[in-house]
Amino acid sequence: MTPFNMQAWSQAHLHTIEQALQHWVTPHAPAGLGDAMRYAVLDGGKRLRPLLVMASMEACTDQPAAWTLDAALRAACAMELIHAYSLVHDDMPCMDNDVLRRGKPTVHVQFGQAQALLAGDALQTLAFELLTPEDSDIPARVQARLCGLLSRAAGHAGMAGGQAIDLASVGQRLSADELRQMHRHKTGALLEASVVMGAVAAQASHATVQHLLRYGRALGVAFQVVDDILDVTADVADLGKTVGKDAANDKPTYVSLMGLEGARAEASRLAQEAQNALRDSGLSPAPALEAVADWVLQRQN
Amino acid sequence: MTPFNMQAWSQAHLHTIEQALQHWVTPHAPAGLGDAMRYAVLDGGKRLRPLLVMASMEACTDQPAAWTLDAALRAACAMELIHAYSLVHDDMPCMDNDVLRRGKPTVHVQFGQAQALLAGDALQTLAFELLTPEDSDIPARVQARLCGLLSRAAGHAGMAGGQAIDLASVGQRLSADELRQMHRHKTGALLEASVVMGAVAAQASHATVQHLLRYGRALGVAFQVVDDILDVTADVADLGKTVGKDAANDKPTYVSLMGLEGARAEASRLAQEAQNALRDSGLSPAPALEAVADWVLQRQN
Repeated sequence: MTPFNMQAWSQAHLHTIEQALQHWVTPHAPAGLGDAMRYAVLDGGKRLRPLLVMASMEACTDQPAAWTLDAALRAACAMELIHAYSLVHDDMPCMDNDVLRRGKPTVHVQFGQAQALLAGDALQTLAFELLTPEDSDIPARVQARLCGLLSRAAGHAGMAGGQAIDLASVGQRLSADELRQMHRHKTGALLEASVVMGAVAAQASHATVQHLLRYGRALGVAFQVVDDILDVTADVADLGKTVGKDAANDKPTYVSLMGLEGARAEASRLAQEAQNALRDSGLSPAPALEAVADWVLQRQN
Repeated sequence: MTPFNMQAWSQAHLHTIEQALQHWVTPHAPAGLGDAMRYAVLDGGKRLRPLLVMASMEACTDQPAAWTLDAALRAACAMELIHAYSLVHDDMPCMDNDVLRRGKPTVHVQFGQAQALLAGDALQTLAFELLTPEDSDIPARVQARLCGLLSRAAGHAGMAGGQAIDLASVGQRLSADELRQMHRHKTGALLEASVVMGAVAAQASHATVQHLLRYGRALGVAFQVVDDILDVTADVADLGKTVGKDAANDKPTYVSLMGLEGARAEASRLAQEAQNALRDSGLSPAPALEAVADWVLQRQN
């Protein structure tokens, strides 16, 4: 058997995902809205969430039906649109007031605040549009389930709720549990849902989904811990966004709570937990999901 | 046959809708987010869109199944959440900068801009959550169709696109066609979708949906024409929001384009067109839909 080549795997999938986003994030939205939406989404980002959707789908089925591939690609792109919208709104002056993202001026700097607000709103809506194509072979039960999963991950009990906790936590001392709770909402919910949506596109069993949830949960926290580490160790050229921002804003982080070494140990422990969940799932081999866990731990940006 | 009593009809439905919104817009969203979401939605608003959903559902079926009633109520509330989110974001300083809405301070005045931004975002997400209940008797094909309709009405090709056109139109001279085009996106898309979603919950035929679309389209434009009339004729106590705002912002309106009398004649013509569409639909009687068209024309706020 040919050994798994993560670089080739992710390049092939990234190509497909970029093409799909180019196609689906329409330039025809009126009055410059399409330009702002495309600016926010295209040519940038690690596409971690879409890659997770695809890796999870592939782990759950050897021979995906054509509609499964379509559903997974739509779920992958929908997830990226939700992520992109949250960044656009998060960067706005009334939130984090960031001027740099992925090495480019943020959307509100480029297009003005009103257009940025609208573009974020329309990107969220477009995510649900992608999941409910007209005249499609994707079974309605899969479409409805994907919408349900995405809305629960993105909304008040997931990402948006985490943003609210984040907002309220500035200048507060949080315990490790509280910090984990915040990030489980803020970034974890989307990462977990990415894994689950890929599995649902592949019609995985309930038991399999539970193991993948455990993987996604550990990965989600690991991702955030590494984010906090990079916020103090990376330089702006690597990260493509403002560094040292959390400390400057007096936001609690894993590094401020555990120190740099403690945070590194926590990230390793969580990556191992993600690998254990995969092993326990009986999905074997799931090389792309394993490789994503490694990458999250080792990433430099 | 007892004559139709619009007041009794709308009071009964408003009671059900308010209770459902009270239940579904959770106070448990973290860190004050739930408070801001509830403030934006509860105890206010004409609930025109939810009432349209219910009226349309009833026009399409005499004896709705339990799941049809559930689907229509969810669609009604989802529609109101989309409407509410758009108002929250529209009122923000970077958009219309309004401080008064439904006689109360706007959400950003009450809770701050960051929380208003998040509350709007989370209200949009919650709309799709409502349409995809877990463990429900609503067929998946209806859930998926409702999500598809709502996303297409709310997004770049509908409401959000209309907002972008509105933004770009400040200080511009628009033709009557361009103005109608803007409003067909901005307010018309949601009103049309309200009617269609009610029909879909009732499993109406394609032909019926087409007639209802024509009704919804005429009603949507009529609603906006009346809005423009009220912006210059109503006083703040009736309207519950700042008056004369459009003229002050140099925004094109039907009144600035056609004069007050011209706009009144246009509103009457459109209300008649809505009634004609109902007559042509063969849905007879559809007293609540007829009454809504009358009300739109005669409303004072």
